[in-house]
Amino acid sequence: MLILVTNDDGVYAPGILALSGALGEVGRVVVAAPDRERSAASHSLTLNQPLRIEKLDHDRYAIDGTPTDCVHLAVNVILEGAKPDLLVSGINRGGNMGQDVTYSGTVWAALEGNLMGIPSFAISLVDDRYADYRPAAIFAARTARWIAENGLPEDTILNINVPDDPEQDLDKYLFTSQGYNRFSESVIRKEDPRGKSYYWIGGERLPFRGSPETDVGAVAGGYISVTPLHADMTNYGELESLKKLHPDNFKPGEYS
Amino acid sequence: MLILVTNDDGVYAPGILALSGALGEVGRVVVAAPDRERSAASHSLTLNQPLRIEKLDHDRYAIDGTPTDCVHLAVNVILEGAKPDLLVSGINRGGNMGQDVTYSGTVWAALEGNLMGIPSFAISLVDDRYADYRPAAIFAARTARWIAENGLPEDTILNINVPDDPEQDLDKYLFTSQGYNRFSESVIRKEDPRGKSYYWIGGERLPFRGSPETDVGAVAGGYISVTPLHADMTNYGELESLKKLHPDNFKPGEYS
Repeated sequence: MLILVTNDDGVYAPGILALSGALGEVGRVVVAAPDRERSAASHSLTLNQPLRIEKLDHDRYAIDGTPTDCVHLAVNVILEGAKPDLLVSGINRGGNMGQDVTYSGTVWAALEGNLMGIPSFAISLVDDRYADYRPAAIFAARTARWIAENGLPEDTILNINVPDDPEQDLDKYLFTSQGYNRFSESVIRKEDPRGKSYYWIGGERLPFRGSPETDVGAVAGGYISVTPLHADMTNYGELESLKKLHPDNFKPGEYS
Repeated sequence: MLILVTNDDGVYAPGILALSGALGEVGRVVVAAPDRERSAASHSLTLNQPLRIEKLDHDRYAIDGTPTDCVHLAVNVILEGAKPDLLVSGINRGGNMGQDVTYSGTVWAALEGNLMGIPSFAISLVDDRYADYRPAAIFAARTARWIAENGLPEDTILNINVPDDPEQDLDKYLFTSQGYNRFSESVIRKEDPRGKSYYWIGGERLPFRGSPETDVGAVAGGYISVTPLHADMTNYGELESLKKLHPDNFKPGEYS
């Protein structure tokens, strides 16, 4: 079993080391990850500059691009077009829940794997009070074995969030939907030595919202959260409503 | 009516000029867009470096960040926290349909507006044979007026794709779902003058797939496509299946 491992915290992050170690018990692991932290890279691709691949050691590569770039280069160059049996992205330092998943390079790397036809999942450690990646790493290895036996539906990845608790019960998990959890839109203003303003995107976390049925709710209750995600962002409920409007009520055409 | 306009092709792109001109008939337009092309920026945020805002002229600003950064800085700094009545992102040079929307800085800027509680839509010109942005600009102004009267549901943006046809009938539009349309995973290898390899992410477009009910299908049939999107990527159908498995069949815990 050939397992491609990536992340957005960078190839030297402790989470990817713990993950690749644990997955080494399940199959051959090839690590191809950004050469530095690329958090909040979302699904971005590097199109305006070329990319380099640095071989660090046997089956471990650093790439100066985004997590999604890494998946492309790993499959097409490092693995010479051989499709891995599984792609695992993580273990992310910090949770990827609620709307935060839409910014996450870690989660989108798994979705990119899925778009390329590779069974894929993302795994994150929520908060980093203990920064103990072992429970999540073991859960990842178990999930990898389960997928090897059972597969995943064609259009679905699993987005797994594990509480940072060294005593986490690995049988305590829930299947959830994406909840509400995001950073506020605060911006911090600073002044450079020449008196000109510059700005930082703020990182204040808004309070969690969401029922126990959501990723946020499950983790708040001490559960590992397992959320099936896909890259289809259609709001189907709303589509039905709009179709009922058409053609008599939605009339942008009545203005000229 | 205060309308915030952004894009991912950059503040000098012809599409955003046509758009802001047309929306000027509907309300006060503030343009805050990347200072250069930032295609394929997806929902990425710039967290590791500060951002600058350059005032170009009255109500027009260039920002050295991603489209999502632009939305943050526009609302929090340029508009001093005043929430716009509408956010419009585009007019993108090239369609944003199928899985391509997941890479698009243009579409994610509109989704960011939605996450901030601003009614938002994205608009793109499919292909650029004629590069005639006028039909799309007029459709955008009409849609803006329609939203001003009718609003949009809290968790939905509209993703509009307009065929590049100077004679496009603006009453010929369909409500659609996100279809299948993406670039292939090709990677192009080159060699630098020192004999070391570097790589470009390829841009070969795969053939369109999808029924006439999808964005891709509608545009292929000569229709303007209007797709309701949201930032919830839960695969609800699959969630139901997984919940039925639990706890007897999904047992990553049975391995140790």
